[in-house]
Amino acid sequence: MSGYTIITGSSSEDVRFPLEAGAGSDAVHTNPIYAYAVCKLKTKAGWEGVGLAFTLGTGNDLVCRVIDHLAQKIEGREINELMSNFGTVWHSMAEDPNLRWLGPHKGVIHLALASVTNACFDLWAKSRGVPLWKLLIDLSAEEIINTLDLSYLEDELSREEAIAMIEKESAGVEERKMILNSGYPGYDTSVGWFNYSDEKVRDNALRAMDAGFLAMKLKVGSNDMQRDIHRVELVRKTVGKDVDLMLDANQQWSLPQAISICSVLKDISPLWIEEPTHPDDLLAHYRLAKEIHPIKLAMGEHLPNRVVFKNYLQSGCMGYNQVDALRVGGISEFITISLLSRKFRIPVVPHVGDMGQIHQHLVLFNHIVLGHEVVFLEHIPHLSSKFRNPVKIVDGCYQLPRSPGSSAAFLK
Amino acid sequence: MSGYTIITGSSSEDVRFPLEAGAGSDAVHTNPIYAYAVCKLKTKAGWEGVGLAFTLGTGNDLVCRVIDHLAQKIEGREINELMSNFGTVWHSMAEDPNLRWLGPHKGVIHLALASVTNACFDLWAKSRGVPLWKLLIDLSAEEIINTLDLSYLEDELSREEAIAMIEKESAGVEERKMILNSGYPGYDTSVGWFNYSDEKVRDNALRAMDAGFLAMKLKVGSNDMQRDIHRVELVRKTVGKDVDLMLDANQQWSLPQAISICSVLKDISPLWIEEPTHPDDLLAHYRLAKEIHPIKLAMGEHLPNRVVFKNYLQSGCMGYNQVDALRVGGISEFITISLLSRKFRIPVVPHVGDMGQIHQHLVLFNHIVLGHEVVFLEHIPHLSSKFRNPVKIVDGCYQLPRSPGSSAAFLK
Repeated sequence: MSGYTIITGSSSEDVRFPLEAGAGSDAVHTNPIYAYAVCKLKTKAGWEGVGLAFTLGTGNDLVCRVIDHLAQKIEGREINELMSNFGTVWHSMAEDPNLRWLGPHKGVIHLALASVTNACFDLWAKSRGVPLWKLLIDLSAEEIINTLDLSYLEDELSREEAIAMIEKESAGVEERKMILNSGYPGYDTSVGWFNYSDEKVRDNALRAMDAGFLAMKLKVGSNDMQRDIHRVELVRKTVGKDVDLMLDANQQWSLPQAISICSVLKDISPLWIEEPTHPDDLLAHYRLAKEIHPIKLAMGEHLPNRVVFKNYLQSGCMGYNQVDALRVGGISEFITISLLSRKFRIPVVPHVGDMGQIHQHLVLFNHIVLGHEVVFLEHIPHLSSKFRNPVKIVDGCYQLPRSPGSSAAFLK
Repeated sequence: MSGYTIITGSSSEDVRFPLEAGAGSDAVHTNPIYAYAVCKLKTKAGWEGVGLAFTLGTGNDLVCRVIDHLAQKIEGREINELMSNFGTVWHSMAEDPNLRWLGPHKGVIHLALASVTNACFDLWAKSRGVPLWKLLIDLSAEEIINTLDLSYLEDELSREEAIAMIEKESAGVEERKMILNSGYPGYDTSVGWFNYSDEKVRDNALRAMDAGFLAMKLKVGSNDMQRDIHRVELVRKTVGKDVDLMLDANQQWSLPQAISICSVLKDISPLWIEEPTHPDDLLAHYRLAKEIHPIKLAMGEHLPNRVVFKNYLQSGCMGYNQVDALRVGGISEFITISLLSRKFRIPVVPHVGDMGQIHQHLVLFNHIVLGHEVVFLEHIPHLSSKFRNPVKIVDGCYQLPRSPGSSAAFLK
């Protein structure tokens, strides 16, 4: 058997999907295409490991080239042996002395590491014939921690603490497995893309309610603040009081703008305000969070690694943690950040560069094993026809994925 | 004349120099080569604009590809017209909606922006037949600020404030021009590369003193703390009390390690301790700076952009600002960060990915125009035979560069 689970070769693929007019648009990204830098790990068996990193097209080829470079380092390794100590492997790739200069731990090189890492987890689950969520929830605390790199977190999360955290949560695991029957709730992120007209926003909001979603998101951050407020009020009027509304500014505001606009938007009681300003500006978020209390800030879509997440959590300004396993260094660093977030009691509500394909597995793990509360998982429908096993939403809930692996493969 | 100063085409070059055994080594980079992603801007005149970004080899080609992409956007522009409003051009390149995903403002894409930006400044100076420092010190406050992008700094530095800062300093400009006669002091960074033997470190320290350097740097951050202390004491014994010693850990420590090791190293009274831990860990630096007061922390070599520098300055933990115009978005963002640093009264002592070629111009500008105090500029001699106009050090001081441009061109 084991000969079939050796990584015999690797390759990258540059996959790009143009979007329909207006879809995916926000205050910063006016005409996006969705692109994936795909890592493929070959075996002698019939299946391969597939990993994804997400980009908006330009430069996707650069990520692919770094994938080629990194994936070579794990060729010849047996997947179960590799994953038994994956934290060390990941560390050596992340700390490559020369590549490191191009980060460290951010940008093109870190996106490539995400794709390679995600391919390893996909292959690992496939080698055991189980969906990723099942693989992950059946691991021991020690096996989980062995897949992580906890360096630069020594002030907050030692290996021993991390193991103890998971073991402490084990008492509630069986009860939390109920989520496998009910399905994890989703929220509709496609109600109010930036370029959509009022009619389209209203129709989308109604359609989202009909589909069972109890939360939806609207893009804000236009130059005309009145337009933002108008759109928010339009949706609130359309869906009523019982639906959660989230507002996403996509880094469009300066701190003074954010303070002044959010002080108005907070009257509409959004569940969160997302990416108000530059993602590197920890102190601006810290100040803004104080100003708009009790409204929460959500961020993480553009935070590159566990060190930055640690700072955001330590500072207390992160209300919702939107880590994306296709932005940070893959599933491994996603789990590390989820552990940190659990310690600080901040919910993880991932940004889904993967359209939820991989994250539907990860939120189940976060809830069942780490004891994270159930919130809801972003749902972006635009590429559902492209995946081999697209996410399935019924009554606003993600249905349990059952095929082996991480659901990352595209149709041929 | 003006036809000769139109950018008629652009290209990138991937230039790599292997180093002698041990040179350039530190706690993280065991066997580096020095590489440059070069941007060349062509004109009908005999000269071209040359810009540099620095890497350690692997991935240098990726930076070149992004340079090709970005430089196309300024082809056909006349250089004086371009630079009269360069802040806007720079902003539009930095905020490219799709490329931005690969950062924002960090990693491969931002290194490419550095190279393109540096080529523009080089071409600008050449088009006027003057060295870069001369171009810069003769600009009006408004002309300087027009080359900058101050977005995301609104909470600290408005356009009006920036202009007022420069105008306020203008009273002392003539006096500060004395530096043009004396030369800007250097410090020797090559005394104690990580892999050098005791003998070599001692010989280098003596040679540095003979060459007139009054400050020198030593790499620390080995697994064996005793080795670090031994090397520091060796150099202190060799050079006596009157030479400043700086210690560079190259991000090798966790926060708890840094606290414990620095509490010992502070007894040796280093002028600064550089890059103690991960460059993204603002809060770790903040805590460490408090612990080791009055010893200062130096950082900036790996800080990617003005937003991160703003946070480091706001937090008060940055004792010396080591911004590198080949890491942040080129000379434009270097000046922005120097302005911010002036506001916070923190000296700028650049890291010199360019071996000081470009930075020898920039520290003159910082002192004469922005009123920054004279500290000293890092000197790394390893590539002096490769540049067309290599820096010249006499009695430990950089001699005034006199050829037109930014001294960035390599020998053919």
